[in-house]
Amino acid sequence: MREIKAGLLGFGNIGAGVVKLLHDNEELITKRLGARLVLKWIADIDIQRPRAVPHYEAMLTTNAWDVINDPEVSIIIELIGGYEPAKTFVLAALDQGKQVVTANKALLAVHGNEIFTKAEQMTVNLAYEASVGGTIPIIKTLKESLAANRFKSIMGIINGTSNFILSKMTDEKKDFEPVLREAQMLGFAEADPTFDVEGIDAAHKLTIVLSLAYDIRVDLKDIYREGITAITRQDIDFAQTLGYRIKLLAIARNRGGSIEARIHPTMIPRDELLASVNSNFNALHLSGDAADSVFLYGQGSGMMPTASAVVGDIMDIARDQLKGITCRVPGRSCLETQLREIALLPMEEVVTNYYVRFSALDKPGVLSRISGILGENNISIASVIQQGRTEGGPVPVVMITHKAREADVRKALAAVDNLEVVADKTVLIRMEDDSLP
Amino acid sequence: MREIKAGLLGFGNIGAGVVKLLHDNEELITKRLGARLVLKWIADIDIQRPRAVPHYEAMLTTNAWDVINDPEVSIIIELIGGYEPAKTFVLAALDQGKQVVTANKALLAVHGNEIFTKAEQMTVNLAYEASVGGTIPIIKTLKESLAANRFKSIMGIINGTSNFILSKMTDEKKDFEPVLREAQMLGFAEADPTFDVEGIDAAHKLTIVLSLAYDIRVDLKDIYREGITAITRQDIDFAQTLGYRIKLLAIARNRGGSIEARIHPTMIPRDELLASVNSNFNALHLSGDAADSVFLYGQGSGMMPTASAVVGDIMDIARDQLKGITCRVPGRSCLETQLREIALLPMEEVVTNYYVRFSALDKPGVLSRISGILGENNISIASVIQQGRTEGGPVPVVMITHKAREADVRKALAAVDNLEVVADKTVLIRMEDDSLP
Repeated sequence: MREIKAGLLGFGNIGAGVVKLLHDNEELITKRLGARLVLKWIADIDIQRPRAVPHYEAMLTTNAWDVINDPEVSIIIELIGGYEPAKTFVLAALDQGKQVVTANKALLAVHGNEIFTKAEQMTVNLAYEASVGGTIPIIKTLKESLAANRFKSIMGIINGTSNFILSKMTDEKKDFEPVLREAQMLGFAEADPTFDVEGIDAAHKLTIVLSLAYDIRVDLKDIYREGITAITRQDIDFAQTLGYRIKLLAIARNRGGSIEARIHPTMIPRDELLASVNSNFNALHLSGDAADSVFLYGQGSGMMPTASAVVGDIMDIARDQLKGITCRVPGRSCLETQLREIALLPMEEVVTNYYVRFSALDKPGVLSRISGILGENNISIASVIQQGRTEGGPVPVVMITHKAREADVRKALAAVDNLEVVADKTVLIRMEDDSLP
Repeated sequence: MREIKAGLLGFGNIGAGVVKLLHDNEELITKRLGARLVLKWIADIDIQRPRAVPHYEAMLTTNAWDVINDPEVSIIIELIGGYEPAKTFVLAALDQGKQVVTANKALLAVHGNEIFTKAEQMTVNLAYEASVGGTIPIIKTLKESLAANRFKSIMGIINGTSNFILSKMTDEKKDFEPVLREAQMLGFAEADPTFDVEGIDAAHKLTIVLSLAYDIRVDLKDIYREGITAITRQDIDFAQTLGYRIKLLAIARNRGGSIEARIHPTMIPRDELLASVNSNFNALHLSGDAADSVFLYGQGSGMMPTASAVVGDIMDIARDQLKGITCRVPGRSCLETQLREIALLPMEEVVTNYYVRFSALDKPGVLSRISGILGENNISIASVIQQGRTEGGPVPVVMITHKAREADVRKALAAVDNLEVVADKTVLIRMEDDSLP
């Protein structure tokens, strides 16, 4: 029986999952592949630390070059994460004509152009299913199954940490800070949660999805990004009253000549499938011109679910190797030279519905002054809620707008916030609801 | 630029969708493939009938052999449906070393062993993504993305017609017969709806899924099958009261040494993702040992959604051809010779929770006699609802059982139905609810 030898860089949680899965399901994998996958090396800066799983037959090393330079190893699995030294190792492996599997979305989002170009020049596979949505087959579905489709829109929950926090805030009526601390204790959030709660991780993943769905090269900086740190229980409560859930959504939409791409907290109707994606689960809702709605859901992180995607990629590459080929499918949607360079639609030109919550002093004429300013800025109001009444203090006034232009909304809110009858900065949460006009 | 030539057998609704998609998205498909897909022939017994789409550059013929025998044509797309002449054409095409794409679940469920064996002998690809769940990438996900997983269970809504009918009965509080007629008028059900409403179509699809998920060969007859024709508004109402929805589910479960496979109306908790799959949508909930829960959702039928899957398959095969290979992935999960022949677990040995509705005469001691019989058969009751009270007539008594063995339940219900205080045959609906003991 033929053997295909792989080497792993990074023996952390996901790395341990890959080692375990290759071992536990070896018989199944061998049968389905018609060949044996052998993990020859594991490299990690700390090989002494006790792991959740033994390393079975793999040799341990602290020197990644032992793995990359071993002529027997044809597949390099990069699970170090971050930019360096992952980038150096991946480029070196590609340079040597090795196939690479990675789960590193930050690396691909920031250095993807260089890395995919190198892989294409060397005619080697670079597989990255685990980089977006963990175990969910998002990359393969976009690149292969739905390859005949133009995508009208893509909406996704692609950061498990922020979804865990928002779900818990909603279900348990808690504030952001204590839920974040709980998520950190449970291992669902990092000690420095910035990448997750500020939408940076989601933006990395959206960058990858955009190239696949729209055949474009995207500059991460062009994606509008807003995290969940400003979301309050009060807005979550209003959302529930109105029949919505607040989710950190990654949104891409084909606007004819240009593409819209943004990450921000979003109100979506409670009966949408995406609204049912709770805890740390991820999901992607694709809308293709032929396929119509396709919804993919699963664990976006975690040791074994992510390992499932990584080993799926290794098997995919092994199938190519067994047939003596590489690059059966381009690294992204098409050849790197054929990806279009386009600027994304500026956020100011996005048109959607808005939830706005004003902190108005309870004085006569306030509502008329606010709605007057909205009207002057071409924003019409679909509904208003004015609840509660605090002795002299500010009263929340919630308005849902008809479709409006982001630039107009920003201008109007700046003017409203300047009114002496408005006590606090107005809160704005964008909505995605096809039923709203 | 290289050209790959395909020929289509069957210019019905789906066939027209494939013709349209290949034409409308030609530029995109060519770019992603790096080659041109040319539809050279279309064969249909009736080529005169006006179609929703023109045939563009394809030649029309009433003789399928013009297509199969054309040496320029390397991919045959079989969209005739049914057993014959589809089977003859598919086997002849494989015999000539042509690659085949089909959406024909009936053919694969009944003659799959012969067809997949032939494809393997001839070393050609047989692709069938459209055969299960229409546009949803179920086949590729099972064969490739999640190939490293053992599946604990698979539950799916894989017949759009019956889901449309059950959804409409639930949402509009209507009976089966008028909703079926409505579905027929809307084109969601055939004039003879037997295949859909009796679960035969779902069983065909489950047969295909079972081979992929469990590396087994399945005899269609071994799959327990029960349709939706006996579902009444009364049971739908009770389900809602109890917090459930009734869905026609295809269920497969790994029971250690054996595999459970069944199609029947099933009560599932309202907050399960599958419970939100309405109208004619399809979905599959996979539970893998590494991947955990993966949920895939989309249009299970329809002209363009199905065409999306068919053209995805054509592109997949074309990618192999462009690299000069075939059979990169086995037709099913592994080589045909390595599929296990196993008998499925007999339905009598299935253990699950049951909803049972008795039609009891309103007389003293009835409840005690019924529950006595259940107890004698090792069935314990989790909850009881006794509602309404008709003058002298029968009263519905609903019980939900703890986990029980199907054989015990059948024996108990036969005994209950023999009681003179029971007016009608007891209704039994199986439940899938992980929260029930």
